[in-house]
Amino acid sequence: MAAAEAALDAAGAAIRPHFRVGLSADDKSDESPVTVADRQAEETLREHLLAAFPDFGIIGEEFPAHRPDAKYTWVIDPIDGTRAFITGRTTFCTLLGLLEDGAPVLGFIDQPITGERWIGGRGVPARFKGGFGGTIGTRQSVTLAEAELSSTAPEMFSPEQAARFAKLQAAAKRVYWGGDAYAYGLLALGQIDVVAECSLKLWDWAALAPVVEAAGGVVTDWAGQPLRLGAAGDVVASANPALHTAALAALRL
Amino acid sequence: MAAAEAALDAAGAAIRPHFRVGLSADDKSDESPVTVADRQAEETLREHLLAAFPDFGIIGEEFPAHRPDAKYTWVIDPIDGTRAFITGRTTFCTLLGLLEDGAPVLGFIDQPITGERWIGGRGVPARFKGGFGGTIGTRQSVTLAEAELSSTAPEMFSPEQAARFAKLQAAAKRVYWGGDAYAYGLLALGQIDVVAECSLKLWDWAALAPVVEAAGGVVTDWAGQPLRLGAAGDVVASANPALHTAALAALRL
Repeated sequence: MAAAEAALDAAGAAIRPHFRVGLSADDKSDESPVTVADRQAEETLREHLLAAFPDFGIIGEEFPAHRPDAKYTWVIDPIDGTRAFITGRTTFCTLLGLLEDGAPVLGFIDQPITGERWIGGRGVPARFKGGFGGTIGTRQSVTLAEAELSSTAPEMFSPEQAARFAKLQAAAKRVYWGGDAYAYGLLALGQIDVVAECSLKLWDWAALAPVVEAAGGVVTDWAGQPLRLGAAGDVVASANPALHTAALAALRL
Repeated sequence: MAAAEAALDAAGAAIRPHFRVGLSADDKSDESPVTVADRQAEETLREHLLAAFPDFGIIGEEFPAHRPDAKYTWVIDPIDGTRAFITGRTTFCTLLGLLEDGAPVLGFIDQPITGERWIGGRGVPARFKGGFGGTIGTRQSVTLAEAELSSTAPEMFSPEQAARFAKLQAAAKRVYWGGDAYAYGLLALGQIDVVAECSLKLWDWAALAPVVEAAGGVVTDWAGQPLRLGAAGDVVASANPALHTAALAALRL
């Protein structure tokens, strides 16, 4: 745990000088922006993790996979929410997840500008540190009609997914757009109750699911299946099991 | 200026204890959430402003107007973005604007959790303080095709407004949803280039327009008219005059 936290501390130090300074962003083929900070942070994380965990694999967004067939594999998203980063918002996060035989078992959500960090996993009680308040733990008694719903952007949905999300939105109390990985952190603090998104990559969800589940929530794909290496990337996270069942039902057309 | 800043400091102190603590929110007739923090912050601002500016009017979201026909009138939104506040996001802001004969001439955008504050107005050079980096000044040479577009939520648009916004979105580089008043602050820092929204109230825009304009931007309604007491509440803010002309053209069907 200490080695992983030290790796995140170093990645944050690599990121901070590039925030709100007018970075140039080159577009990848999928149009997502990639910044200098993104690459430097992933390089920093890889160096630290390789040194501390020589037998583990590493899969990251920016560089080729290292030993992806290892029993334990770190999964890195150096800057989740590069669009947020580029527009100066502190909702981007550095994500670090650990897979055991392809299943996510430990996650770190780090916000290097605000200094907030969420940690949790299988056998690792969820914890949160940060200066803005908030206590770890999802809302265990909230119903779907009372639920605060969040999703990063309507543009991520196909027409069919948009129709399914609209059903969920109609059943929830309210929706707030935007948030990236930070929204899952707020769910772990009992501030948001459901997050539903599509087209997430392995490095997006590998850190998020263990943190939310350690905080009392449930995370699956939109069909209710556990997220594993190879999952399609439609993700729904809920504050408690009954709410999750209701959210999955609302997502069915 | 010192008295207005002291009023904001006191309002922030009234707000902070209520952030991320699981407030109860009662719904007003228009469904917008109202919190204890909202009311306490407006009461605090009113007390300070009445004491320091006895001849000025005060219009606020939560309480009846005081001398609204005065030549100078303070306009208060104690918590712009109550939905963000309730979900634990630091994009809500306390807004304080000053009208002179119904025209906005001075604005304060304050984020009491992050400690960020933007100030600007007619004859008052824009300034920004905060610990997350950023330099005051809009991007003077950005074109619409290069522009980062932002808007709080697609739900705020009528079908006609949605069609007009879709044209603007297609012409801009990218859109990011969410942000509330904080997005106008990021525009004043050159991080966002265009914000277009509808259904804004006087207390939403009265503080925003002077700050953005003092930072080098332009703010009007969607028809290009200056915002004044009685404006309909469709607002577009741009980083520079040429960009504003292009954004207004894109917003025409």
